[in-house]
Amino acid sequence: MGLDVNAVWRYAPVERWTSGAAAVILLTFDVDAETMLLGEGGDRYASDLSGMSHGAFGATVGLERLLRMLERHSTPATFFIPGWTAEHHPRCVERVAAAGHEIALHGYLHKPPSSCDQDEQRAEIERSLEVFERLGVRPVGYRAPVWMTTSYTLEQLGSYGLQYDSSLMDDDKPYLLDTPSGRLAELPPQWYLDDGEQYLYLPYPGFDGVIQRPSSVADTWRDEVDAYRAIHSLLVLTAHPCLSGRPARVRALESVIEYAESLGDVELARCDEVAARLLETPEVELLQSRPGE
Amino acid sequence: MGLDVNAVWRYAPVERWTSGAAAVILLTFDVDAETMLLGEGGDRYASDLSGMSHGAFGATVGLERLLRMLERHSTPATFFIPGWTAEHHPRCVERVAAAGHEIALHGYLHKPPSSCDQDEQRAEIERSLEVFERLGVRPVGYRAPVWMTTSYTLEQLGSYGLQYDSSLMDDDKPYLLDTPSGRLAELPPQWYLDDGEQYLYLPYPGFDGVIQRPSSVADTWRDEVDAYRAIHSLLVLTAHPCLSGRPARVRALESVIEYAESLGDVELARCDEVAARLLETPEVELLQSRPGE
Amino acid sequence: MGLDVNAVWRYAPVERWTSGAAAVILLTFDVDAETMLLGEGGDRYASDLSGMSHGAFGATVGLERLLRMLERHSTPATFFIPGWTAEHHPRCVERVAAAGHEIALHGYLHKPPSSCDQDEQRAEIERSLEVFERLGVRPVGYRAPVWMTTSYTLEQLGSYGLQYDSSLMDDDKPYLLDTPSGRLAELPPQWYLDDGEQYLYLPYPGFDGVIQRPSSVADTWRDEVDAYRAIHSLLVLTAHPCLSGRPARVRALESVIEYAESLGDVELARCDEVAARLLETPEVELLQSRPGE
Amino acid sequence: MGLDVNAVWRYAPVERWTSGAAAVILLTFDVDAETMLLGEGGDRYASDLSGMSHGAFGATVGLERLLRMLERHSTPATFFIPGWTAEHHPRCVERVAAAGHEIALHGYLHKPPSSCDQDEQRAEIERSLEVFERLGVRPVGYRAPVWMTTSYTLEQLGSYGLQYDSSLMDDDKPYLLDTPSGRLAELPPQWYLDDGEQYLYLPYPGFDGVIQRPSSVADTWRDEVDAYRAIHSLLVLTAHPCLSGRPARVRALESVIEYAESLGDVELARCDEVAARLLETPEVELLQSRPGE
Repeated sequence: MGLDVNAVWRYAPVERWTSGAAAVILLTFDVDAETMLLGEGGDRYASDLSGMSHGAFGATVGLERLLRMLERHSTPATFFIPGWTAEHHPRCVERVAAAGHEIALHGYLHKPPSSCDQDEQRAEIERSLEVFERLGVRPVGYRAPVWMTTSYTLEQLGSYGLQYDSSLMDDDKPYLLDTPSGRLAELPPQWYLDDGEQYLYLPYPGFDGVIQRPSSVADTWRDEVDAYRAIHSLLVLTAHPCLSGRPARVRALESVIEYAESLGDVELARCDEVAARLLETPEVELLQSRPGE
Repeated sequence: MGLDVNAVWRYAPVERWTSGAAAVILLTFDVDAETMLLGEGGDRYASDLSGMSHGAFGATVGLERLLRMLERHSTPATFFIPGWTAEHHPRCVERVAAAGHEIALHGYLHKPPSSCDQDEQRAEIERSLEVFERLGVRPVGYRAPVWMTTSYTLEQLGSYGLQYDSSLMDDDKPYLLDTPSGRLAELPPQWYLDDGEQYLYLPYPGFDGVIQRPSSVADTWRDEVDAYRAIHSLLVLTAHPCLSGRPARVRALESVIEYAESLGDVELARCDEVAARLLETPEVELLQSRPGE
Repeated sequence: MGLDVNAVWRYAPVERWTSGAAAVILLTFDVDAETMLLGEGGDRYASDLSGMSHGAFGATVGLERLLRMLERHSTPATFFIPGWTAEHHPRCVERVAAAGHEIALHGYLHKPPSSCDQDEQRAEIERSLEVFERLGVRPVGYRAPVWMTTSYTLEQLGSYGLQYDSSLMDDDKPYLLDTPSGRLAELPPQWYLDDGEQYLYLPYPGFDGVIQRPSSVADTWRDEVDAYRAIHSLLVLTAHPCLSGRPARVRALESVIEYAESLGDVELARCDEVAARLLETPEVELLQSRPGE
Repeated sequence: MGLDVNAVWRYAPVERWTSGAAAVILLTFDVDAETMLLGEGGDRYASDLSGMSHGAFGATVGLERLLRMLERHSTPATFFIPGWTAEHHPRCVERVAAAGHEIALHGYLHKPPSSCDQDEQRAEIERSLEVFERLGVRPVGYRAPVWMTTSYTLEQLGSYGLQYDSSLMDDDKPYLLDTPSGRLAELPPQWYLDDGEQYLYLPYPGFDGVIQRPSSVADTWRDEVDAYRAIHSLLVLTAHPCLSGRPARVRALESVIEYAESLGDVELARCDEVAARLLETPEVELLQSRPGE
């Protein structure tokens, strides 16, 4: 096996976690806000007020606009909020919680675990948990910043009472991981389902993507919905309010939601719901071997 | 609040600054010319005569062509001109002024404030003001080169008699900032509304974008006009004469202007006009809190 | 001659290697798996569990899905598998072999020959051959990782009993190379026929491509099939299961296979078959000079 | 004036250099071949046989294919050939000359003047002239590698008996430059009219463009033909045989030539012809000031 982790992969039958839908879409938002810069180099980029304001848009105007759009469709979503964002934009946490969405962990300063030592890895999680505790929120899921987790961070998650992770990319169906600190559901993301690859451009600190036309992004995402339906997979769509909260992009995302709704057999769910279904699967139904292993 | 600025955000009702239009488009041109290279590394790139000529096109042929196009449509625009450009291409300043467009500050050598110390930040502004004074121009607005301003530069603007800034990205509606040196209007730009992201390619000094087809850029910008109209926002479109002054790109930009004109409810305005409307808003109508805060 | 190699180029008539088809498509898969990271910097990226899982997808879920798709069409293919992948994912080798596809060499840790000294170059091949011997597989072909071979590696291939190489880009028809260690068939690849250029994005270690829409990639590839047919060339299509094994991308690749099948005059073959046809060409029919030399 | 050159810009009326056509297209090919790597770092990339073969394609197969295509349309063209390419691929020079096309200078090892000291700048030109003299070719034009010329190189050209340069980007109409060593015609290129920006991808040495679909490149170029016609400009199209000599790309370029031919009022010419027309313009008709100066 290629992944060096003290964990056992286990698979539940599709019917268990889809509850019968042809495919499940997890609409997830990473509210990085200013940490998109801070996590790349501490104070190095903090003096760039324009770059910081680009991030701040995500925790304020962009977030509000997306929340209103989700409300129009009664669409449930999961918001991965770095501890720093929650601490500096407490209103953002209040608004997301009040709208009935899920709030999950996404590091404190958006530092990827793979660039931290073990103490820092734990600190990024623990500091965030403290912030959310003060705000009355109890996250049950975690996503590694920049999707660069480590076996160490993965194996710690259970000890914080977390029930799922969304950082590994070795499948497009969800699965279970039995780690030394407990069983986790894994809800696998993928770079091509992240709006950052399509929209993120900030020349410093080197986010030099090619900004795509929103209507073309929506076309691509609709194709993905079709492809995931056909094979009953879990489409974890990741958007950033500082990117997808812009006028034409909100429309693009809304058109994908409308398309999914129109199909009649696609479910839009929160991460914690799908994680719970996986974790509730009777032991006897679980398969241990990974596909292809 | 995530932005570390000694300023207070204040918002005017949409009707005040749009004067009733569904959306306002600010057509802005950054006449970087050779400073596009010089600001990246002083003399390091100055010996590259081809790269310098690529910039010079913007202050000469490209500018002339765009001025004629604007004249055909009686479209008002704002030209952000670095002091160095004004000094070395004084005819450029004359032509823009004679055509009735606004001229505003854009640094002296196009050095981003966030890569300058405080003395250099002031020098970039003061040296530019001296050049424009000699040319008989009195700018009232400022845009940070590479959209990388600092809280220091932002807080100095009022002391130079400036009335607006166009460097922050935390909204797509304009707003007011009460800084220690006075009240400023903020007219927020965004990278995805900058033709640089679509057209700029110069392998040295590392401008390695992917050049887009002009007709496709026009399609994208028309989508944005629609999206901004729908939510009554301020579309600050930024073009560079050294890029958008090329034959097919002038046509692309013209087609966007024609589209906006055809809608009947979109206003094309100069930055100073919208800034003035904001600044004239009666105190009693202003809201203090930022959206989402 | 521009290529500094102790080899003589020799050309067989098109009819010999196409066996009468208008064009031949070699569908090839590089099963880099985790070596996509490991080959870039040894242990440096190994701690990034997410990146590693992105690779692992290729040797497991992605591979299985592609094998099933190929089975639906009875399409033969060649899988270039790094030794490390074969060693850590032995099931992957079994599955490919059981499905009747060809397995060929692709380095051990996916280190490009041009960044290795001569000892390391030999070790990358020898270590892989040992792994495959243990697994009962006898490869006859080689492709340099990252398509960066050296004259040294090329000239060694014959001594390992290999019959073809797929690393040079100086033609789009196959040819023969008489090297000091024996005659090789060369089956030339090209970057624009590699799904990596279209799909690969991993910010660390700097794979910063722009992810394309799968349906658009399929459109492009169909154009290439047409262009290669018109001039009777060899279209060596390269896909990576960690990229092209994703839902919408499997559909895109399948649509290209369906298109090729529908034409009636295009052959889909394994590399070893076309290499054998070239090597069997009667000496008298071979031309020695390279086109244009 | 922003360009630090000891030269005077002079302009001829459009009718002189177009000879009545609505626009003139100069089809130019840069036959960089292996120097695309060598010029970036001497021997550093020379051991990468695959990269070198990617270049070699341009001087052999790709070149032959493009020559045949041009012959089908009796289209004249100019080939800028680095001295190294001519020395190592003498057959390439013979073939281009025999087909009646123009051959012009493009450095010796494809090293940009702006990264060379003055001795090296002269050596790049002189060494190339020696190679061409041995091959019986007398170039009259020059284009700086990577379009990074210097005022020094520009001012030397006349002393070598050269009549035109194609390295500056401050106009899209041709003009005259009176330099200390004589009068030159300038035939301005532009990055967006270079197939490298659309097709070049070689991860080492860092050519990390995004490969475009050939039919889409052809669409873009047809748009440019229309735009240049409308304003009577000079469209200097630059292609590299190692890129545009590939099957689908030859078709794309051919479709642009067919489009230009179909228009009836567009001329396809060699660089030396247009340069000669400019140089023959009666003194009395020349304007001295640059547009916008």
